Amino acid sequence: MAPAATPNSPEIREIRQEGPHHFVFSPYIEPQATVVPGETVAIYTEDAFGGRISEPEHLPSKVLGTQLNPQTGPIFVEGAEPGDTLAVKIEELEPTRDWAVSAFVPFFGGLTGTDATRLLHEPLPERIYFYQLADGVFNYEDRFRIPWRPFLGTMGTAPEIEALSALTPHRHGGNMDVRDTCPGNTLYLPVNVEGALFYTGDMHGAQGDGEVCGVALEISGRAVLSFDLIKGKAIEWPRIESPDKLMAVGSARPMEDAARIAYVELVRWLADDYDFDPLDAYQLLTQAGSLYVGNMVDPNYSLVAGLQKSHLP
Amino acid sequence: MAPAATPNSPEIREIRQEGPHHFVFSPYIEPQATVVPGETVAIYTEDAFGGRISEPEHLPSKVLGTQLNPQTGPIFVEGAEPGDTLAVKIEELEPTRDWAVSAFVPFFGGLTGTDATRLLHEPLPERIYFYQLADGVFNYEDRFRIPWRPFLGTMGTAPEIEALSALTPHRHGGNMDVRDTCPGNTLYLPVNVEGALFYTGDMHGAQGDGEVCGVALEISGRAVLSFDLIKGKAIEWPRIESPDKLMAVGSARPMEDAARIAYVELVRWLADDYDFDPLDAYQLLTQAGSLYVGNMVDPNYSLVAGLQKSHLP
Amino acid sequence: MAPAATPNSPEIREIRQEGPHHFVFSPYIEPQATVVPGETVAIYTEDAFGGRISEPEHLPSKVLGTQLNPQTGPIFVEGAEPGDTLAVKIEELEPTRDWAVSAFVPFFGGLTGTDATRLLHEPLPERIYFYQLADGVFNYEDRFRIPWRPFLGTMGTAPEIEALSALTPHRHGGNMDVRDTCPGNTLYLPVNVEGALFYTGDMHGAQGDGEVCGVALEISGRAVLSFDLIKGKAIEWPRIESPDKLMAVGSARPMEDAARIAYVELVRWLADDYDFDPLDAYQLLTQAGSLYVGNMVDPNYSLVAGLQKSHLP
Amino acid sequence: MAPAATPNSPEIREIRQEGPHHFVFSPYIEPQATVVPGETVAIYTEDAFGGRISEPEHLPSKVLGTQLNPQTGPIFVEGAEPGDTLAVKIEELEPTRDWAVSAFVPFFGGLTGTDATRLLHEPLPERIYFYQLADGVFNYEDRFRIPWRPFLGTMGTAPEIEALSALTPHRHGGNMDVRDTCPGNTLYLPVNVEGALFYTGDMHGAQGDGEVCGVALEISGRAVLSFDLIKGKAIEWPRIESPDKLMAVGSARPMEDAARIAYVELVRWLADDYDFDPLDAYQLLTQAGSLYVGNMVDPNYSLVAGLQKSHLP
Repeated sequence: MAPAATPNSPEIREIRQEGPHHFVFSPYIEPQATVVPGETVAIYTEDAFGGRISEPEHLPSKVLGTQLNPQTGPIFVEGAEPGDTLAVKIEELEPTRDWAVSAFVPFFGGLTGTDATRLLHEPLPERIYFYQLADGVFNYEDRFRIPWRPFLGTMGTAPEIEALSALTPHRHGGNMDVRDTCPGNTLYLPVNVEGALFYTGDMHGAQGDGEVCGVALEISGRAVLSFDLIKGKAIEWPRIESPDKLMAVGSARPMEDAARIAYVELVRWLADDYDFDPLDAYQLLTQAGSLYVGNMVDPNYSLVAGLQKSHLP
Repeated sequence: MAPAATPNSPEIREIRQEGPHHFVFSPYIEPQATVVPGETVAIYTEDAFGGRISEPEHLPSKVLGTQLNPQTGPIFVEGAEPGDTLAVKIEELEPTRDWAVSAFVPFFGGLTGTDATRLLHEPLPERIYFYQLADGVFNYEDRFRIPWRPFLGTMGTAPEIEALSALTPHRHGGNMDVRDTCPGNTLYLPVNVEGALFYTGDMHGAQGDGEVCGVALEISGRAVLSFDLIKGKAIEWPRIESPDKLMAVGSARPMEDAARIAYVELVRWLADDYDFDPLDAYQLLTQAGSLYVGNMVDPNYSLVAGLQKSHLP
Repeated sequence: MAPAATPNSPEIREIRQEGPHHFVFSPYIEPQATVVPGETVAIYTEDAFGGRISEPEHLPSKVLGTQLNPQTGPIFVEGAEPGDTLAVKIEELEPTRDWAVSAFVPFFGGLTGTDATRLLHEPLPERIYFYQLADGVFNYEDRFRIPWRPFLGTMGTAPEIEALSALTPHRHGGNMDVRDTCPGNTLYLPVNVEGALFYTGDMHGAQGDGEVCGVALEISGRAVLSFDLIKGKAIEWPRIESPDKLMAVGSARPMEDAARIAYVELVRWLADDYDFDPLDAYQLLTQAGSLYVGNMVDPNYSLVAGLQKSHLP
Repeated sequence: MAPAATPNSPEIREIRQEGPHHFVFSPYIEPQATVVPGETVAIYTEDAFGGRISEPEHLPSKVLGTQLNPQTGPIFVEGAEPGDTLAVKIEELEPTRDWAVSAFVPFFGGLTGTDATRLLHEPLPERIYFYQLADGVFNYEDRFRIPWRPFLGTMGTAPEIEALSALTPHRHGGNMDVRDTCPGNTLYLPVNVEGALFYTGDMHGAQGDGEVCGVALEISGRAVLSFDLIKGKAIEWPRIESPDKLMAVGSARPMEDAARIAYVELVRWLADDYDFDPLDAYQLLTQAGSLYVGNMVDPNYSLVAGLQKSHLP
């Protein structure tokens, strides 16, 4: 399940959203661009706030509204049909500006009441944090220094019949906010509709596990991605392959369901592609699996289960 | 919060359980031994099955019964009083035999119905896996090779008035099954009763995150531990300090509550000891925190939130 | 918040889906019919299986596919704008056939592993139960006798930008499967888009709390509904008013989040319309609230919190 | 499973705690009294605050401390052995004072951050509500009128090896806070140790479903209870029988696990005592079961699944 990739060619095609960005992963939107399997393109993405927070006075409650996490796409992948798997290798991620922003958004985040964990508290204070990026490090007032470790917070395909908010991660990928959708890794996504209809956005300059306040180092950027297709092979949930690891992403609530999904998907991968008895895979993952929290703030929580390839037969 | 330690002295005292091992963390049990702050001792532990699974025919449903996870202790720490913090540095862990065992126990584990997630399915098959330990590697039938990376699955103090099963992790520590209670790290535990009443057991030769089938590489062992006290300083949940990281362990269900506990405890640590504004700590952890699943199988799930010390002021 | 209703007039207009039924609550679908506030209409609904299970050999795994819970609609409500509340009074529900069906669908239900609570078990057995309806009682092989107590399992408006599966309950209503959307009661729904775009389907001839196997007494039917608008008044989650009770429906996972949503929405109702201090409402609901589980099987669980009107000032 | 009861005899024996009340359900405490199967006794209980809140200035944060929910007991039941079932019929509940108290306790309750759902919010305001009881109605400042509908919030047996907080409901019963442990009903409890060791306390003059702020109408009282034994028959979780209903109580987190436990226990009851095929029981409960939330505030949530006896063969 390792697609060929032809990155970094000089004549690489650039995809900028010509019309408005979208806020849903939808099968009902006209493609903005087309790629062929094997092709590498550079895609420009807005930050998760659509750039609306760029000054200290841009309080989230005043400027954000309901349209969040603008996506570039959909991108039609030639030949993709339901039942195939789309492979997207992240070749390179670059920022298109020299600062990132985080913020406390009222009733959003992992350590606050939210619209789902609905309580009677007043919201936590709003605050905006601007980080300056220089020499590969984000700097917040000389107090926090966070190395540039970028990934795409949101990548996914269109669901079969639903149009899901760009804030929601699920089987189709979406707003997973897991740090392993980073340069060098390949994300595998289910193809649910003709052409797959790929969307991406929400570049994070860096993020801690769980993205606990809900807002990472949000930045606009340029993503060089290679697309490939695995025909006639379906997966149920997103998978990620790094040079040395197999991973699967489960997105659900409560969090234990996300963990179960991720580990079962990894059992399936080992069974289908590496000839494991499923229960033996269960045993091996017990002793050698990894499991971290990508996000604990989105409409579904995303967990990543993994296994070093050194354990493969 | 870094206790002095005096490990590996030649005359190190050895603690073996003289009477029966215990299956609860209880304030109602007579101490088996006493240590003084600053002292280093070697403690012998049984495996989580009390050694009852040593042959292929020892099916869990036949041999286990209800007494699981035998603990060595309680150990009375001189001078410990409620409101103090007990610091236990794990100096060294050694196996006392050359094999470990894992098994599928009916209705126990992360990918099966259980007595808590109670369903109408038949149990998954029982199976026993014996691993041979040689040259620092556990070997299962030349198919799985797992490096020796030991930790103590269960470490804790007595609760104030409850006697909690040795299978249950909570504020007092207990059966956390997190890989960072390993050599070189220090575990901080709340002192709830006079003498703290420390128990430990459940050495794991290695374990993947989540301990997904519920049974790691269970082995009997010898743990060299240094004890220290932080007088007059209370913590609410267990904390772990490694040479380069601060960590906190939350144990709860659903799993998101464990994540919230872990991250809030880390916020408190940063606020109390490193002069962080709590909301600034929330921000920093968003960009630089780590969060992994220790266990997804015990009566409470345990998650570990962490921060590299390089981020401290 | 009690809309006028003019039911049962002889010349009542009937709405049958002319084109295909829909399987999403979507703002992107052309209205099938228009109603004016104050109007009463009769709407025909298919059963949740689209009638595909009518013989014992129609096993769910063979006949169902992915298109489930067909909806009649969308119905455009004249004058409805975002920020309004749509009031739908259920005047009358009648079956359009004399039998109902329930079934065990693989990996669907409350006491089985599912695609969200994903485990390694084999599915539970598939089974179909046909019930004959006569004299107001559903009869299954003279063993189970269930009185006709119908409600509409699925009622809702279009979300603002998402198109959500007809299986999913959320803020917009949808597949709540709560027994109080029954004759005599009024359901209040948020209006998220112009015209509200109301859908309904999934008549249940009867259902126990939780709908525990996932499939109630599914039947096709005719629903007489009165529509009204509350202009300029927004609600966040669905509310239900019976002759003697105020209720709110929360739909989320885990189930405690659904409970929190339902009770907070009821606190808001009491505060906004009955001049309660929110904390006094919290107190009163502690002593006099009701809280039952509508469904424990859908992508979100739905709980209904209620208060007898006798407690209102 | 319906024990004989001999209530209200004039010479009824009264049990008052002679020593201190207990705050754990523990197998390690000496019995305070003994009853024989078939016997009816009157047991006096303190309120959940141990009477410490009786004046407006008794703010919970000032007077409560950690010892909450005092229990009368343990009561040794002659002849009870592990594997038996204890049947306790609630014959009569009377208040021993003419007022009840509720309160908002910091970080406790269903619509607030708590020590388990740990967040960064400040606590909600503390408040105390005193209700005067007259003519069968609790009156709070002529604003809230709540009819006297008493039940025992806490009833249970000692666990096998654990000593569990009197705040925690689980398999042994304990602090379930479900309204069906009321006069006329019989509670069945597992016997885990010799003599069963029954405890009770926490009389509620009334309570809404979920006990949402965490504190019902707390009152001291006198409970007339009849004890009986079902020898050689084990149950896994508490069951309740009313004149017209069978019920089972599940206590767990997340709440869906409590719901699963309750419904599976009811399936088992129908299978064991009424010869149901378990899957047929699953079907019947889908159409005719009831499921309400007893508490959404304790260390485990308690849900009650039920079935009208009219559905029994």
